[in-house]
Amino acid sequence: MAAEEGQVAVTVSNKQVIFNNYVSGFPKESDMSIAVGEINLKLPESAAAGVLLKNLYLSCDPYMRPRMRNSSGSYVGAFQPGSPLSGYGVAKVLESGHPNFEKGDLVWGSTGWEEYTVSTEPGQLFKIQHKDVPLSYYTGILGMPGMTAYVGLYELCSPKKGEYVYVSAASGAVGQLVGQFAKLAGCYVVKNKFGFDEAFNYKEEQDLAAALKRYFPQGIDIYFENVGGKMLDAVLGNMRLRGRIAVCGMISQYNLESPEGVHNLASLIMNRIRMEGFIVSDHYHLYPKYLEMVVPKIKEGKIVYVEDTAEGLDNAPAALVGLFYGRNVGKQVVKVADD
Amino acid sequence: MAAEEGQVAVTVSNKQVIFNNYVSGFPKESDMSIAVGEINLKLPESAAAGVLLKNLYLSCDPYMRPRMRNSSGSYVGAFQPGSPLSGYGVAKVLESGHPNFEKGDLVWGSTGWEEYTVSTEPGQLFKIQHKDVPLSYYTGILGMPGMTAYVGLYELCSPKKGEYVYVSAASGAVGQLVGQFAKLAGCYVVKNKFGFDEAFNYKEEQDLAAALKRYFPQGIDIYFENVGGKMLDAVLGNMRLRGRIAVCGMISQYNLESPEGVHNLASLIMNRIRMEGFIVSDHYHLYPKYLEMVVPKIKEGKIVYVEDTAEGLDNAPAALVGLFYGRNVGKQVVKVADD
Repeated sequence: MAAEEGQVAVTVSNKQVIFNNYVSGFPKESDMSIAVGEINLKLPESAAAGVLLKNLYLSCDPYMRPRMRNSSGSYVGAFQPGSPLSGYGVAKVLESGHPNFEKGDLVWGSTGWEEYTVSTEPGQLFKIQHKDVPLSYYTGILGMPGMTAYVGLYELCSPKKGEYVYVSAASGAVGQLVGQFAKLAGCYVVKNKFGFDEAFNYKEEQDLAAALKRYFPQGIDIYFENVGGKMLDAVLGNMRLRGRIAVCGMISQYNLESPEGVHNLASLIMNRIRMEGFIVSDHYHLYPKYLEMVVPKIKEGKIVYVEDTAEGLDNAPAALVGLFYGRNVGKQVVKVADD
Repeated sequence: MAAEEGQVAVTVSNKQVIFNNYVSGFPKESDMSIAVGEINLKLPESAAAGVLLKNLYLSCDPYMRPRMRNSSGSYVGAFQPGSPLSGYGVAKVLESGHPNFEKGDLVWGSTGWEEYTVSTEPGQLFKIQHKDVPLSYYTGILGMPGMTAYVGLYELCSPKKGEYVYVSAASGAVGQLVGQFAKLAGCYVVKNKFGFDEAFNYKEEQDLAAALKRYFPQGIDIYFENVGGKMLDAVLGNMRLRGRIAVCGMISQYNLESPEGVHNLASLIMNRIRMEGFIVSDHYHLYPKYLEMVVPKIKEGKIVYVEDTAEGLDNAPAALVGLFYGRNVGKQVVKVADD
């Protein structure tokens, strides 16, 4: 075991992004603060079966907003005021007490918003096998968001050639992939900024229903729901018979004290619509199958992935906050360190 | 063909329930009127391939309310002002130009709200095979509502033993069956008036969410949605992981100018819920399979079916209006004539 090897323990500084306190309304940079502590680069006894990680990239994801609320209202736990945020990231293993990992391994999965993290649950980490792609992709196309797009579109919605697919929040980590995956399946896709068939920006459209009618005069077969509220209502009013809605997230609702009402649910009956919520982590057993599909497509240039990279932990709070204003163009990632 | 057989055409009076005009808000008896016309008891040339029906029972169903609106907002056409209402019923064939039917057959399916109806689409009628049960059952347990309960519960929700099932509007034609079917599948069922495990009346409960928590402290696995609006919101707030919602109807919304907002849809994500709308007529190919299951259960007394019968077409408008005030206890049917 690592603790028994008699290495010299090096103490280094460990910059962290601290969650200050629970948030209401839109999150602000001041809801977080930068602190610099110290860490002994050795697995402590209490985490002898864990791994010590050097974080390389951290992922900014919409699901982190519900974790800023003091409630069990999310499917993952709330952040602890006074402690660093946590989330998905890419890291290098500095020391391992777990049989699945060894020093030097690159991994992606749950980690802290800091330079170094002691992970006591390395079962939630994936070892990175394909290293001839940008490592940051494991916060996006090759990580949780990629799997989210894959599961939501292919597993829940079974797209058929010629079907009409609408992706909301298509400039984000997930949305840009749903659109490309749907194109690969031969669908007609509408959303913005990434060369899909048509494009509009939901924040600029006064009348969402009219906009959807204009872009989908024949209606929508598949909707990948990332936005919620008024957007969902407008979509429900323009669905086709036997349409499918994968409910992945509702970013427009996360900063509201109480969620908007959705009025057009009778459309579910009339149009025989199936609407299904999902959490990607229920489907991680499909990850090898997904990699098999997507890695060659990345290498052949058949799928492109746009990233928006913030440099350094100091810029991490602004990057995270920016998500909820739609400031990111592409997957928002924070680069913490080189390899 | 019938018209060529040289029978003597008998002219008789034909009482009808006329739809006066489009309705907003709750329907009133005065939205309909009784008229007495005449009918020649012979298939007209224009309906030579149709059937002439003597109506015995007519069915009052919630889906008829959307048909009173001047819009394409329903999955079936609007009623025509000045013409009789139409709906499901049980009838006797007086004359047939269609190969599937002959004089004397008993049928159920789409017919007019009148004593005699010329049906030009007898493909939408089912010939009644089992006659040793009350004929009126073919407006309910052995007709459209029975199939609705069967399809919504078994096909869409796949109930498993021990699951918690909530049925709204359980005193109606469909709800009373969903509850019994779920009990047969070994589920724990909550709804009122028919001996299910627990009972409450949604119109009397001030705080639906608290009521549901009280009756389902462990949450709801399956919800058969007949009510919509606030009821759906309360249910969404108390669903269990991987719950299923069959969306059959939303009777609480049919009389509103604009539907209520539903706020708790984020529960779909957190709890991985599948919510699916359906129209029973898409599933009529399963009718023989359904009869095979349900007819023996009726004869053995293992399923009971409560009817609320109005006598005569004169009482049909009040019976239909009563549905939307919850006046019916059991399936609301109108008896038009003896065999």
